[in-house]
Amino acid sequence: MGISLELAQQAVHAAHQKALDLGVKMNIAVVDAGANLTAFIRMDDAWLGSIDIAIRKAKTARFFDMPTGDLGKASQPGGSLYNIEHSNGGLITFPGGIPILDANGRVVGAIGVSGSTVENDHAVAEAGVHAVENQ
Amino acid sequence: MGISLELAQQAVHAAHQKALDLGVKMNIAVVDAGANLTAFIRMDDAWLGSIDIAIRKAKTARFFDMPTGDLGKASQPGGSLYNIEHSNGGLITFPGGIPILDANGRVVGAIGVSGSTVENDHAVAEAGVHAVENQ
Amino acid sequence: MGISLELAQQAVHAAHQKALDLGVKMNIAVVDAGANLTAFIRMDDAWLGSIDIAIRKAKTARFFDMPTGDLGKASQPGGSLYNIEHSNGGLITFPGGIPILDANGRVVGAIGVSGSTVENDHAVAEAGVHAVENQ
Amino acid sequence: MGISLELAQQAVHAAHQKALDLGVKMNIAVVDAGANLTAFIRMDDAWLGSIDIAIRKAKTARFFDMPTGDLGKASQPGGSLYNIEHSNGGLITFPGGIPILDANGRVVGAIGVSGSTVENDHAVAEAGVHAVENQ
Repeated sequence: MGISLELAQQAVHAAHQKALDLGVKMNIAVVDAGANLTAFIRMDDAWLGSIDIAIRKAKTARFFDMPTGDLGKASQPGGSLYNIEHSNGGLITFPGGIPILDANGRVVGAIGVSGSTVENDHAVAEAGVHAVENQ
Repeated sequence: MGISLELAQQAVHAAHQKALDLGVKMNIAVVDAGANLTAFIRMDDAWLGSIDIAIRKAKTARFFDMPTGDLGKASQPGGSLYNIEHSNGGLITFPGGIPILDANGRVVGAIGVSGSTVENDHAVAEAGVHAVENQ
Repeated sequence: MGISLELAQQAVHAAHQKALDLGVKMNIAVVDAGANLTAFIRMDDAWLGSIDIAIRKAKTARFFDMPTGDLGKASQPGGSLYNIEHSNGGLITFPGGIPILDANGRVVGAIGVSGSTVENDHAVAEAGVHAVENQ
Repeated sequence: MGISLELAQQAVHAAHQKALDLGVKMNIAVVDAGANLTAFIRMDDAWLGSIDIAIRKAKTARFFDMPTGDLGKASQPGGSLYNIEHSNGGLITFPGGIPILDANGRVVGAIGVSGSTVENDHAVAEAGVHAVENQ
Protein backbone atom coordinates (compact mmCIF):
# COMPACT_ATOMS: atom_id res chain seq x y z
CA MET A 1 0.00 0.00 0.00
CA GLY A 2 2.39 2.56 -1.22
CA ILE A 3 5.87 3.16 0.09
CA SER A 4 7.85 0.22 1.49
CA LEU A 5 9.54 0.33 4.88
CA GLU A 6 12.89 0.20 3.10
CA LEU A 7 12.19 3.36 1.10
CA ALA A 8 10.57 5.04 4.09
CA GLN A 9 13.72 4.42 6.13
CA GLN A 10 15.88 5.79 3.29
CA ALA A 11 13.78 8.95 3.30
CA VAL A 12 14.08 9.25 7.08
CA HIS A 13 17.82 8.64 6.93
CA ALA A 14 18.39 11.30 4.24
CA ALA A 15 16.25 13.80 6.14
CA HIS A 16 18.16 13.00 9.34
CA GLN A 17 21.46 13.67 7.57
CA LYS A 18 20.18 16.99 6.25
CA ALA A 19 19.11 17.97 9.77
CA LEU A 20 22.59 17.13 11.08
CA ASP A 21 24.11 19.23 8.28
CA LEU A 22 21.89 22.16 9.24
CA GLY A 23 22.58 21.68 12.94
CA VAL A 24 18.89 21.36 13.81
CA LYS A 25 16.94 18.82 15.91
CA MET A 26 14.01 17.32 14.09
CA ASN A 27 11.10 14.94 14.36
CA ILE A 28 10.73 13.08 11.05
CA ALA A 29 7.69 10.98 10.06
CA VAL A 30 6.78 9.00 6.93
CA VAL A 31 3.25 7.78 6.16
CA ASP A 32 2.16 5.39 3.39
CA ALA A 33 -0.47 5.85 0.67
CA GLY A 34 -3.21 5.20 3.25
CA ALA A 35 -1.81 8.02 5.46
CA ASN A 36 -0.77 5.43 8.05
CA LEU A 37 2.52 5.85 9.96
CA THR A 38 5.38 3.83 8.46
CA ALA A 39 8.57 5.23 10.03
CA PHE A 40 9.45 7.87 12.60
CA ILE A 41 12.45 9.23 14.48
CA ARG A 42 12.94 11.99 17.01
CA MET A 43 16.44 13.40 17.24
CA ASP A 44 17.83 13.87 20.76
CA ASP A 45 16.42 17.01 22.41
CA ALA A 46 14.08 17.78 19.50
CA TRP A 47 10.90 19.58 20.62
CA LEU A 48 8.42 17.19 22.21
CA GLY A 49 5.52 19.14 20.72
CA SER A 50 6.88 18.47 17.28
CA ILE A 51 6.32 14.71 17.46
CA ASP A 52 2.64 15.22 16.80
CA ILE A 53 3.25 18.03 14.31
CA ALA A 54 5.65 15.97 12.20
CA ILE A 55 3.14 13.11 12.02
CA ARG A 56 0.25 15.49 11.21
CA LYS A 57 2.30 17.21 8.50
CA ALA A 58 2.98 13.87 6.82
CA LYS A 59 -0.70 12.89 7.03
CA THR A 60 -1.86 16.31 5.80
CA ALA A 61 0.49 16.14 2.79
CA ARG A 62 -0.98 12.76 1.84
CA PHE A 63 -4.56 13.76 2.67
CA PHE A 64 -4.44 16.42 -0.05
CA ASP A 65 -1.47 15.30 -2.18
CA MET A 66 0.32 18.63 -1.89
CA PRO A 67 2.97 20.27 0.29
CA THR A 68 1.45 21.41 3.58
CA GLY A 69 2.57 24.98 2.95
CA ASP A 70 0.49 25.16 -0.23
CA LEU A 71 -2.61 24.24 1.75
CA GLY A 72 -1.75 26.88 4.32
CA LYS A 73 -1.83 29.62 1.70
CA ALA A 74 -5.53 28.88 1.12
CA SER A 75 -6.48 28.42 4.79
CA GLN A 76 -5.69 31.98 5.91
CA PRO A 77 -8.46 34.37 7.01
CA GLY A 78 -10.40 35.29 3.89
CA GLY A 79 -8.94 32.33 1.99
CA SER A 80 -11.01 29.69 0.25
CA LEU A 81 -10.09 26.97 2.77
CA TYR A 82 -10.16 29.10 5.94
CA ASN A 83 -9.86 26.95 9.07
CA ILE A 84 -9.58 23.65 7.18
CA GLU A 85 -7.26 22.71 10.07
CA HIS A 86 -10.33 21.72 12.10
CA SER A 87 -10.93 18.65 9.93
CA ASN A 88 -9.43 15.18 10.20
CA GLY A 89 -8.78 15.49 13.91
CA GLY A 90 -6.41 18.41 13.32
CA LEU A 91 -4.31 19.34 10.28
CA ILE A 92 -1.01 21.21 10.14
CA THR A 93 -0.87 23.53 7.13
CA PHE A 94 2.48 25.32 7.41
CA PRO A 95 5.55 24.00 5.54
CA GLY A 96 7.30 20.74 6.41
CA GLY A 97 5.03 18.09 4.86
CA ILE A 98 5.62 16.87 1.27
CA PRO A 99 4.06 14.02 -0.76
CA ILE A 100 6.33 11.25 -2.09
CA LEU A 101 5.74 10.12 -5.70
CA ASP A 102 6.80 6.95 -7.46
CA ALA A 103 8.23 6.72 -10.99
CA ASN A 104 4.69 6.74 -12.42
CA GLY A 105 3.80 9.97 -10.67
CA ARG A 106 1.50 8.30 -8.16
CA VAL A 107 1.55 9.45 -4.53
CA VAL A 108 2.87 6.52 -2.47
CA GLY A 109 3.20 8.35 0.84
CA ALA A 110 4.44 11.55 2.42
CA ILE A 111 7.07 12.89 4.81
CA GLY A 112 6.54 15.37 7.63
CA VAL A 113 9.27 17.23 9.51
CA SER A 114 9.03 19.51 12.54
CA GLY A 115 11.55 20.96 14.98
CA SER A 116 13.00 24.19 13.58
CA THR A 117 11.90 27.09 11.36
CA VAL A 118 9.37 26.15 8.70
CA GLU A 119 12.07 26.85 6.10
CA ASN A 120 14.36 24.30 7.73
CA ASP A 121 11.49 21.87 8.25
CA HIS A 122 10.67 22.07 4.54
CA ALA A 123 14.32 21.73 3.49
CA VAL A 124 14.76 18.62 5.63
CA ALA A 125 11.53 17.12 4.28
CA GLU A 126 12.71 17.84 0.74
CA ALA A 127 15.98 16.01 1.38
CA GLY A 128 13.95 12.99 2.43
CA VAL A 129 11.76 13.14 -0.66
CA HIS A 130 14.70 13.55 -3.04
CA ALA A 131 16.35 10.42 -1.66
CA VAL A 132 13.47 8.19 -2.70
CA GLU A 133 11.39 9.94 -5.36
CA ASN A 134 10.69 8.24 -8.65
CA GLN A 135 11.48 4.79 -7.29
CA MET B 1 -36.16 11.56 10.36
CA GLY B 2 -36.02 13.61 7.24
CA ILE B 3 -34.55 12.46 3.97
CA SER B 4 -35.03 8.83 2.97
CA LEU B 5 -32.14 6.64 1.84
CA GLU B 6 -33.73 6.57 -1.61
CA LEU B 7 -33.61 10.35 -1.98
CA ALA B 8 -30.19 10.54 -0.36
CA GLN B 9 -28.86 8.09 -2.93
CA GLN B 10 -30.47 10.11 -5.75
CA ALA B 11 -28.69 13.20 -4.45
CA VAL B 12 -25.38 11.33 -4.25
CA HIS B 13 -25.89 9.91 -7.75
CA ALA B 14 -26.63 13.31 -9.27
CA ALA B 15 -23.63 14.87 -7.52
CA HIS B 16 -21.45 11.98 -8.70
CA GLN B 17 -22.59 12.59 -12.29
CA LYS B 18 -21.81 16.29 -12.00
CA ALA B 19 -18.34 15.47 -10.68
CA LEU B 20 -17.75 13.16 -13.64
CA ASP B 21 -18.92 15.92 -16.01
CA LEU B 22 -16.48 18.37 -14.39
CA GLY B 23 -13.67 15.81 -14.42
CA VAL B 24 -13.09 16.08 -10.66
CA LYS B 25 -12.75 13.44 -7.92
CA MET B 26 -15.09 14.03 -5.04
CA ASN B 27 -16.15 12.78 -1.64
CA ILE B 28 -19.93 13.16 -1.34
CA ALA B 29 -21.92 12.85 1.90
CA VAL B 30 -25.60 13.21 2.76
CA VAL B 31 -26.92 13.59 6.32
CA ASP B 32 -30.54 13.46 7.46
CA ALA B 33 -32.56 15.95 9.54
CA GLY B 34 -30.74 14.71 12.65
CA ALA B 35 -27.37 15.52 11.02
CA ASN B 36 -26.57 11.80 10.99
CA LEU B 37 -24.77 10.21 8.02
CA THR B 38 -27.18 8.62 5.53
CA ALA B 39 -25.13 8.02 2.37
CA PHE B 40 -21.52 8.51 1.32
CA ILE B 41 -19.24 7.76 -1.59
CA ARG B 42 -15.58 8.47 -2.31
CA MET B 43 -14.64 8.50 -6.00
CA ASP B 44 -11.46 6.61 -6.90
CA ASP B 45 -8.34 8.63 -6.01
CA ALA B 46 -10.32 11.45 -4.40
CA TRP B 47 -8.37 13.17 -1.59
CA LEU B 48 -8.34 11.09 1.58
CA GLY B 49 -8.51 14.24 3.70
CA SER B 50 -11.78 15.15 2.03
CA ILE B 51 -13.70 12.18 3.47
CA ASP B 52 -13.92 13.93 6.81
CA ILE B 53 -14.43 17.37 5.24
CA ALA B 54 -17.36 16.22 3.06
CA ILE B 55 -19.10 14.72 6.10
CA ARG B 56 -18.41 17.82 8.22
CA LYS B 57 -19.73 20.12 5.47
CA ALA B 58 -22.98 18.16 5.33
CA LYS B 59 -23.33 18.24 9.13
CA THR B 60 -22.43 21.94 9.32
CA ALA B 61 -25.04 22.81 6.67
CA ARG B 62 -27.73 21.01 8.68
CA PHE B 63 -26.47 22.27 12.06
CA PHE B 64 -27.27 25.84 10.98
CA ASP B 65 -29.66 25.29 8.04
CA MET B 66 -27.57 27.34 5.64
CA PRO B 67 -24.85 26.78 3.03
CA THR B 68 -21.46 26.33 4.71
CA GLY B 69 -19.99 29.24 2.75
CA ASP B 70 -22.55 31.62 4.30
CA LEU B 71 -21.40 30.61 7.77
CA GLY B 72 -17.79 31.14 6.73
CA LYS B 73 -18.43 34.79 5.93
CA ALA B 74 -19.26 35.39 9.59
CA SER B 75 -16.49 33.24 11.08
CA GLN B 76 -13.58 35.37 9.83
CA PRO B 77 -11.39 37.38 12.21
CA GLY B 78 -13.52 40.28 13.49
CA GLY B 79 -16.70 38.56 12.33
CA SER B 80 -19.69 37.89 14.56
CA LEU B 81 -19.11 34.11 14.61
CA TYR B 82 -15.31 34.23 14.74
CA ASN B 83 -13.85 30.71 15.05
CA ILE B 84 -17.22 28.98 15.32
CA GLU B 85 -15.30 26.07 13.73
CA HIS B 86 -14.18 25.05 17.23
CA SER B 87 -17.69 23.89 18.14
CA ASN B 88 -19.33 20.53 17.53
CA GLY B 89 -16.04 18.68 17.33
CA GLY B 90 -14.98 20.75 14.33
CA LEU B 91 -17.01 22.57 11.67
CA ILE B 92 -16.11 23.28 8.06
CA THR B 93 -17.35 26.72 6.96
CA PHE B 94 -16.12 27.10 3.39
CA PRO B 95 -18.40 26.26 0.44
CA GLY B 96 -19.52 22.73 -0.42
CA GLY B 97 -22.27 22.04 2.13
CA ILE B 98 -25.93 22.83 1.33
CA PRO B 99 -29.20 22.05 3.17
CA ILE B 100 -31.85 19.95 1.41
CA LEU B 101 -35.49 21.12 1.71
CA ASP B 102 -38.74 19.27 1.15
CA ALA B 103 -41.81 20.60 -0.70
CA ASN B 104 -42.97 22.33 2.51
CA GLY B 105 -39.71 24.21 2.88
CA ARG B 106 -38.54 22.13 5.84
CA VAL B 107 -34.90 21.10 6.04
CA VAL B 108 -34.80 17.30 5.72
CA GLY B 109 -31.03 16.91 5.49
CA ALA B 110 -27.93 18.29 3.82
CA ILE B 111 -25.23 17.38 1.33
CA GLY B 112 -21.49 17.98 1.68
CA VAL B 113 -18.90 17.72 -1.10
CA SER B 114 -15.10 17.97 -0.96
CA GLY B 115 -12.29 17.16 -3.36
CA SER B 116 -11.65 20.12 -5.66
CA THR B 117 -11.88 23.93 -5.56
CA VAL B 118 -14.61 25.28 -3.32
CA GLU B 119 -16.40 26.49 -6.44
CA ASN B 120 -16.48 22.95 -7.85
CA ASP B 121 -17.36 21.50 -4.46
CA HIS B 122 -20.34 23.87 -4.25
CA ALA B 123 -21.44 23.18 -7.85
CA VAL B 124 -21.40 19.43 -7.27
CA ALA B 125 -23.32 19.82 -4.00
CA GLU B 126 -25.89 21.99 -5.81
CA ALA B 127 -26.39 19.29 -8.45
CA GLY B 128 -27.17 16.86 -5.67
CA VAL B 129 -29.64 19.22 -4.03
CA HIS B 130 -31.40 20.04 -7.30
CA ALA B 131 -32.01 16.36 -8.00
CA VAL B 132 -34.10 15.91 -4.86
CA GLU B 133 -35.32 19.31 -3.64
CA ASN B 134 -39.02 19.91 -3.09
CA GLN B 135 -39.80 16.20 -2.91
CA MET C 1 -5.51 1.90 -3.04
CA GLY C 2 -7.51 -1.23 -2.82
CA ILE C 3 -11.18 -1.56 -3.64
CA SER C 4 -12.69 0.73 -6.30
CA LEU C 5 -15.85 2.74 -5.70
CA GLU C 6 -17.61 0.57 -8.26
CA LEU C 7 -16.88 -2.65 -6.35
CA ALA C 8 -17.58 -0.97 -3.02
CA GLN C 9 -21.00 0.06 -4.26
CA GLN C 10 -21.67 -3.47 -5.52
CA ALA C 11 -20.84 -4.79 -2.06
CA VAL C 12 -23.12 -2.22 -0.43
CA HIS C 13 -25.90 -3.01 -2.88
CA ALA C 14 -25.70 -6.77 -2.29
CA ALA C 15 -25.64 -6.27 1.47
CA HIS C 16 -28.61 -3.91 1.21
CA GLN C 17 -30.56 -6.55 -0.73
CA LYS C 18 -29.75 -9.17 1.88
CA ALA C 19 -30.97 -6.83 4.62
CA LEU C 20 -34.23 -6.30 2.73
CA ASP C 21 -34.60 -10.09 2.35
CA LEU C 22 -34.10 -10.53 6.11
CA GLY C 23 -36.43 -7.65 6.92
CA VAL C 24 -33.81 -5.80 8.94
CA LYS C 25 -32.63 -2.16 8.91
CA MET C 26 -28.89 -1.82 8.55
CA ASN C 27 -26.01 0.61 8.38
CA ILE C 28 -23.50 -0.64 5.81
CA ALA C 29 -19.95 0.71 5.39
CA VAL C 30 -17.05 -0.20 3.10
CA VAL C 31 -13.46 0.94 3.67
CA ASP C 32 -10.49 0.59 1.31
CA ALA C 33 -7.07 -0.99 1.89
CA GLY C 34 -6.02 2.08 3.88
CA ALA C 35 -9.06 1.65 6.17
CA ASN C 36 -10.54 4.87 4.78
CA LEU C 37 -14.30 5.14 4.18
CA THR C 38 -15.29 4.45 0.56
CA ALA C 39 -19.07 3.91 0.61
CA PHE C 40 -21.83 4.01 3.21
CA ILE C 41 -25.61 3.77 3.45
CA ARG C 42 -28.07 3.86 6.32
CA MET C 43 -31.43 2.23 5.66
CA ASP C 44 -34.50 4.20 6.75
CA ASP C 45 -35.07 3.95 10.50
CA ALA C 46 -31.89 1.95 11.09
CA TRP C 47 -30.37 2.57 14.54
CA LEU C 48 -28.53 5.87 14.69
CA GLY C 49 -25.95 4.38 17.04
CA SER C 50 -25.08 1.83 14.40
CA ILE C 51 -23.68 4.38 11.95
CA ASP C 52 -20.50 4.60 13.97
CA ILE C 53 -20.48 0.87 14.74
CA ALA C 54 -20.76 -0.14 11.07
CA ILE C 55 -17.85 2.14 10.15
CA ARG C 56 -15.74 0.91 13.09
CA LYS C 57 -16.48 -2.74 12.20
CA ALA C 58 -15.24 -2.17 8.65
CA LYS C 59 -12.11 -0.42 9.91
CA THR C 60 -11.47 -3.08 12.57
CA ALA C 61 -11.76 -5.88 9.99
CA ARG C 62 -9.15 -4.14 7.81
CA PHE C 63 -6.96 -3.14 10.76
CA PHE C 64 -6.38 -6.82 11.57
CA ASP C 65 -7.38 -8.56 8.31
CA MET C 66 -9.89 -10.85 10.01
CA PRO C 67 -13.62 -10.92 10.77
CA THR C 68 -14.39 -8.71 13.77
CA GLY C 69 -15.97 -11.63 15.62
CA ASP C 70 -12.68 -13.54 15.49
CA LEU C 71 -10.94 -10.69 17.22
CA GLY C 72 -13.69 -10.58 19.83
CA LYS C 73 -13.02 -14.16 20.84
CA ALA C 74 -9.52 -13.14 21.99
CA SER C 75 -10.52 -9.84 23.63
CA GLN C 76 -12.72 -11.36 26.35
CA PRO C 77 -11.70 -11.22 30.02
CA GLY C 78 -8.75 -13.57 30.43
CA GLY C 79 -8.15 -13.63 26.67
CA SER C 80 -4.85 -12.77 25.04
CA LEU C 81 -6.15 -9.50 23.57
CA TYR C 82 -8.31 -8.39 26.51
CA ASN C 83 -9.59 -4.83 26.04
CA ILE C 84 -7.93 -4.34 22.64
CA GLU C 85 -11.04 -2.25 21.92
CA HIS C 86 -9.34 0.73 23.61
CA SER C 87 -6.88 1.09 20.72
CA ASN C 88 -7.29 2.99 17.45
CA GLY C 89 -9.81 5.40 18.88
CA GLY C 90 -12.23 2.55 19.60
CA LEU C 91 -12.62 -0.85 17.97
CA ILE C 92 -15.74 -3.00 17.59
CA THR C 93 -14.95 -6.70 18.02
CA PHE C 94 -18.29 -8.47 17.74
CA PRO C 95 -19.45 -9.93 14.41
CA GLY C 96 -20.42 -7.80 11.41
CA GLY C 97 -17.07 -6.75 9.95
CA ILE C 98 -15.35 -8.86 7.25
CA PRO C 99 -12.25 -8.22 5.07
CA ILE C 100 -12.65 -8.19 1.28
CA LEU C 101 -9.99 -10.04 -0.75
CA ASP C 102 -9.06 -9.75 -4.40
CA ALA C 103 -8.33 -12.65 -6.78
CA ASN C 104 -4.72 -12.76 -5.52
CA GLY C 105 -5.79 -13.15 -1.93
CA ARG C 106 -4.78 -9.63 -0.95
CA VAL C 107 -7.02 -7.62 1.38
CA VAL C 108 -8.35 -4.68 -0.64
CA GLY C 109 -10.83 -3.37 1.94
CA ALA C 110 -13.52 -4.46 4.35
CA ILE C 111 -17.25 -4.21 4.97
CA GLY C 112 -18.97 -3.43 8.28
CA VAL C 113 -22.67 -3.91 9.04
CA SER C 114 -24.66 -2.92 12.13
CA GLY C 115 -28.36 -2.68 12.93
CA SER C 116 -29.69 -6.06 14.01
CA THR C 117 -28.45 -9.16 15.84
CA VAL C 118 -24.77 -9.90 15.34
CA GLU C 119 -25.81 -13.01 13.41
CA ASN C 120 -27.81 -10.88 10.98
CA ASP C 121 -25.08 -8.25 10.86
CA HIS C 122 -22.56 -10.91 9.90
CA ALA C 123 -24.88 -12.51 7.32
CA VAL C 124 -25.50 -9.16 5.63
CA ALA C 125 -21.76 -8.37 5.62
CA GLU C 126 -21.09 -11.78 4.09
CA ALA C 127 -23.57 -11.10 1.29
CA GLY C 128 -21.64 -7.93 0.52
CA VAL C 129 -18.31 -9.74 0.48
CA HIS C 130 -19.57 -12.58 -1.71
CA ALA C 131 -20.78 -10.11 -4.34
CA VAL C 132 -17.29 -8.76 -4.95
CA GLU C 133 -14.71 -11.23 -3.65
CA ASN C 134 -11.95 -12.48 -5.92
CA GLN C 135 -12.35 -9.60 -8.36
CA MET D 1 15.27 12.59 28.65
CA GLY D 2 16.22 8.99 28.81
CA ILE D 3 17.04 6.84 25.82
CA SER D 4 18.95 8.41 22.94
CA LEU D 5 17.79 8.08 19.34
CA GLU D 6 20.87 5.98 18.67
CA LEU D 7 19.94 3.40 21.31
CA ALA D 8 16.26 3.55 20.34
CA GLN D 9 17.19 2.74 16.76
CA GLN D 10 19.40 -0.14 17.94
CA ALA D 11 16.43 -1.51 19.88
CA VAL D 12 14.17 -1.15 16.85
CA HIS D 13 16.77 -2.77 14.60
CA ALA D 14 17.23 -5.77 16.91
CA ALA D 15 13.47 -6.20 17.25
CA HIS D 16 13.10 -5.96 13.48
CA GLN D 17 15.71 -8.70 13.02
CA LYS D 18 13.91 -10.92 15.53
CA ALA D 19 10.65 -10.40 13.67
CA LEU D 20 12.33 -11.39 10.39
CA ASP D 21 13.73 -14.50 12.10
CA LEU D 22 10.26 -15.43 13.34
CA GLY D 23 8.68 -14.68 9.95
CA VAL D 24 6.21 -12.18 11.42
CA LYS D 25 5.24 -8.63 10.38
CA MET D 26 5.47 -6.19 13.23
CA ASN D 27 4.93 -2.60 14.23
CA ILE D 28 7.75 -1.57 16.59
CA ALA D 29 7.76 1.60 18.74
CA VAL D 30 10.20 3.03 21.26
CA VAL D 31 9.33 5.83 23.70
CA ASP D 32 11.70 7.76 25.95
CA ALA D 33 11.57 8.36 29.72
CA GLY D 34 8.84 10.95 29.15
CA ALA D 35 6.73 8.33 27.32
CA ASN D 36 7.12 10.31 24.11
CA LEU D 37 7.63 8.55 20.76
CA THR D 38 11.30 8.30 19.80
CA ALA D 39 11.45 5.74 16.98
CA PHE D 40 8.93 3.66 15.04
CA ILE D 41 8.79 1.29 12.09
CA ARG D 42 6.00 -0.67 10.43
CA MET D 43 7.12 -3.71 8.46
CA ASP D 44 5.54 -4.11 5.02
CA ASP D 45 2.00 -5.52 5.28
CA ALA D 46 1.99 -5.47 9.09
CA TRP D 47 -1.51 -4.94 10.53
CA LEU D 48 -2.61 -1.32 10.26
CA GLY D 49 -4.41 -1.57 13.58
CA SER D 50 -1.16 -2.48 15.28
CA ILE D 51 0.47 0.91 14.64
CA ASP D 52 -1.56 2.42 17.44
CA ILE D 53 -1.26 -0.68 19.62
CA ALA D 54 2.55 -0.82 19.38
CA ILE D 55 2.79 2.84 20.40
CA ARG D 56 0.29 2.37 23.25
CA LYS D 57 2.15 -0.70 24.52
CA ALA D 58 5.39 1.27 24.68
CA LYS D 59 3.69 4.15 26.49
CA THR D 60 1.84 1.83 28.88
CA ALA D 61 5.09 0.03 29.79
CA ARG D 62 6.73 3.37 30.65
CA PHE D 63 3.62 4.77 32.34
CA PHE D 64 3.85 2.03 34.98
CA ASP D 65 7.45 0.82 34.59
CA MET D 66 6.44 -2.80 34.06
CA PRO D 67 5.74 -5.15 31.15
CA THR D 68 2.25 -4.55 29.76
CA GLY D 69 1.27 -8.17 30.38
CA ASP D 70 1.88 -7.75 34.12
CA LEU D 71 -0.55 -4.86 34.21
CA GLY D 72 -3.10 -6.93 32.31
CA LYS D 73 -3.15 -9.56 35.04
CA ALA D 74 -4.54 -6.95 37.44
CA SER D 75 -6.97 -5.30 35.01
CA GLN D 76 -9.25 -8.31 34.58
CA PRO D 77 -12.81 -8.34 35.96
CA GLY D 78 -12.54 -8.55 39.75
CA GLY D 79 -8.88 -7.50 39.63
CA SER D 80 -7.44 -4.61 41.61
CA LEU D 81 -6.91 -2.46 38.49
CA TYR D 82 -10.08 -3.48 36.66
CA ASN D 83 -10.46 -1.53 33.40
CA ILE D 84 -7.41 0.65 33.95
CA GLU D 85 -7.34 0.67 30.12
CA HIS D 86 -9.78 3.60 30.23
CA SER D 87 -7.09 5.96 31.54
CA ASN D 88 -4.52 7.97 29.62
CA GLY D 89 -6.58 8.04 26.46
CA GLY D 90 -6.47 4.24 26.20
CA LEU D 91 -3.94 1.72 27.52
CA ILE D 92 -2.99 -1.68 26.10
CA THR D 93 -2.35 -4.22 28.85
CA PHE D 94 -1.60 -7.47 27.04
CA PRO D 95 1.99 -8.54 26.37
CA GLY D 96 4.30 -6.74 23.93
CA GLY D 97 5.41 -3.68 25.91
CA ILE D 98 8.57 -3.74 28.06
CA PRO D 99 10.48 -0.99 29.92
CA ILE D 100 14.12 -0.33 28.99
CA LEU D 101 16.60 0.19 31.88
CA ASP D 102 20.02 1.77 31.92
CA ALA D 103 23.11 0.42 33.74
CA ASN D 104 21.93 2.08 36.97
CA GLY D 105 18.56 0.35 36.83
CA ARG D 106 16.67 3.49 35.91
CA VAL D 107 13.89 3.27 33.34
CA VAL D 108 15.00 5.30 30.32
CA GLY D 109 12.18 4.33 27.96
CA ALA D 110 10.15 1.41 26.72
CA ILE D 111 9.49 -0.65 23.60
CA GLY D 112 6.12 -1.77 22.27
CA VAL D 113 5.53 -4.41 19.59
CA SER D 114 2.31 -5.49 17.87
CA GLY D 115 1.49 -7.59 14.83
CA SER D 116 1.35 -11.27 15.76
CA THR D 117 0.44 -13.43 18.77
CA VAL D 118 1.13 -11.80 22.12
CA GLU D 119 3.87 -14.39 22.67
CA ASN D 120 5.63 -13.30 19.47
CA ASP D 121 4.99 -9.63 20.25
CA HIS D 122 6.65 -10.08 23.64
CA ALA D 123 9.59 -12.07 22.21
CA VAL D 124 10.28 -9.38 19.62
CA ALA D 125 10.05 -6.64 22.26
CA GLU D 126 12.46 -8.60 24.46
CA ALA D 127 14.97 -8.82 21.60
CA GLY D 128 14.83 -5.05 21.33
CA VAL D 129 15.35 -4.57 25.07
CA HIS D 130 18.25 -7.03 25.24
CA ALA D 131 20.09 -5.16 22.50
CA VAL D 132 20.28 -1.98 24.54
CA GLU D 133 19.71 -2.76 28.22
CA ASN D 134 22.27 -1.71 30.82
CA GLN D 135 23.84 0.88 28.52
